[in-house]
Amino acid sequence: MCLPGTVETVRERIETEGLPRLDRRAALLGAAGAALAAALPAAARGRSGAGATSVQDLTHLFFEGFPTFGPPSPAREDYATYGVNGFYSQTWTFHEHSGTHMDAPGHFIPGKRLTPDIPVSDLIAPLAVIDIRRKAARNPDAMVEVSDIRKYERAHGAIPAGALVAMDSGWAAKVENSDAFKGGAAFPNYHFPGFSSDAAMFLAEERNVRAIGVDTLSLDPGNSSTFDVHVNFLGTNRYGVENLANLGSVPPAGATVYVGVIPWEEGSGGPLRAFATW
Amino acid sequence: MCLPGTVETVRERIETEGLPRLDRRAALLGAAGAALAAALPAAARGRSGAGATSVQDLTHLFFEGFPTFGPPSPAREDYATYGVNGFYSQTWTFHEHSGTHMDAPGHFIPGKRLTPDIPVSDLIAPLAVIDIRRKAARNPDAMVEVSDIRKYERAHGAIPAGALVAMDSGWAAKVENSDAFKGGAAFPNYHFPGFSSDAAMFLAEERNVRAIGVDTLSLDPGNSSTFDVHVNFLGTNRYGVENLANLGSVPPAGATVYVGVIPWEEGSGGPLRAFATW
Repeated sequence: MCLPGTVETVRERIETEGLPRLDRRAALLGAAGAALAAALPAAARGRSGAGATSVQDLTHLFFEGFPTFGPPSPAREDYATYGVNGFYSQTWTFHEHSGTHMDAPGHFIPGKRLTPDIPVSDLIAPLAVIDIRRKAARNPDAMVEVSDIRKYERAHGAIPAGALVAMDSGWAAKVENSDAFKGGAAFPNYHFPGFSSDAAMFLAEERNVRAIGVDTLSLDPGNSSTFDVHVNFLGTNRYGVENLANLGSVPPAGATVYVGVIPWEEGSGGPLRAFATW
Repeated sequence: MCLPGTVETVRERIETEGLPRLDRRAALLGAAGAALAAALPAAARGRSGAGATSVQDLTHLFFEGFPTFGPPSPAREDYATYGVNGFYSQTWTFHEHSGTHMDAPGHFIPGKRLTPDIPVSDLIAPLAVIDIRRKAARNPDAMVEVSDIRKYERAHGAIPAGALVAMDSGWAAKVENSDAFKGGAAFPNYHFPGFSSDAAMFLAEERNVRAIGVDTLSLDPGNSSTFDVHVNFLGTNRYGVENLANLGSVPPAGATVYVGVIPWEEGSGGPLRAFATW
């Protein structure tokens, strides 16, 4: 906005009074640890039994040019600048399936839930992280299979009902290199890991999970042209999360994930902020 | 995206196989209550001493035409439709200060933190809600004053360090009527409640809060042309949240707020999903 008087009043205050008050950043940051411990609810679940004092961001920077399944990538431009307007801000344009984002059930299936239909109680869930980094490093077409889920449960216990089950393929580290992240120049020649439809439907039907998540561009592996997981899993009215980050920095079991999706009007999903506490 | 084969493969699957699998929505929703109780961490803080089993969304629907301080309002258009593309999605264009959103410290003050500079540990905070609905109903220029904070603390105890302190003026109910929400056709003729600069700086300097929030369009009251709270409070490198919803549905003290702001690249703030648990 370029509003009459705004530039002059704000700039004049800064010029005549200097930058206002004491910069309390150091004090604020110094208090952050204690304040976090005070703010974080204690974990009743989880293996430690101790208070939840850890938090991990699971979200990529939402940057201009973020790799997307198809064009366009997110774009931004200045809306206002300090010098011209007295304040600074940007305008954004992007497809809903950009950055760390949700696939709502209605993304593929008419009549299923769109983003605002998913209540906040569905956005807080036990987090289970299935690590397939070793096989994905050998084969970019690797999938989370039912056998990976059973192996996970032998090591970490049963996946709780209502969980969000996330694949950690190691792909998050590639996000700044679009070709590496996609494993190919353009669809249908992508190669990156995803869920097998059998594994996704096992989680829906046998474990009654709330959602699945991946650290890649798609719930399906990149070489899929039939999008079975999108059709079948979203078809159960459950949601997915794509392009998760930092899954290697949370415990495989016992954390709680918060899926802070913006309630985009009639959204087919859309950008979100996810973090985990434990 | 209009990718070769996508429409055909997905549509063909639906046409030949029908909508996939059993619609498990009813089962999912039936399990939601128990799953939420399992997912939500127990509250070590809070007045009840019992487990945290309540959650409240504090976010407005992000809708086309959402009232903004200045033009433009958020806009959306179809990117893909089921019939043409085999899936559905949208493209969005908006100014960062749309919907329920953050004002990052760098929105007004050069060199202060932008959205991605704010760590996730700063996005989880004890929530204190100061109710000024009675005086705001009589006077749309009402402000949260230091006396309101002292009155709150006599009733609910000291505001904890690191808190997010939110004003509940009752304005959230007006959001679908832009003129009523703004209290005037255009700046500088707005009338809606906000914080007084003295109150905001009391919270920064005497209570070391992490952030302030409002259920109106601006941290400052609508009739401000000097934006004192933006200049002074954001100048301490603390952030603000605007257009919060449902503040009357959370306890005045004892809840924890999660500020799920998208980490917009070089963001001056931006849309977020906020919710509270207690």
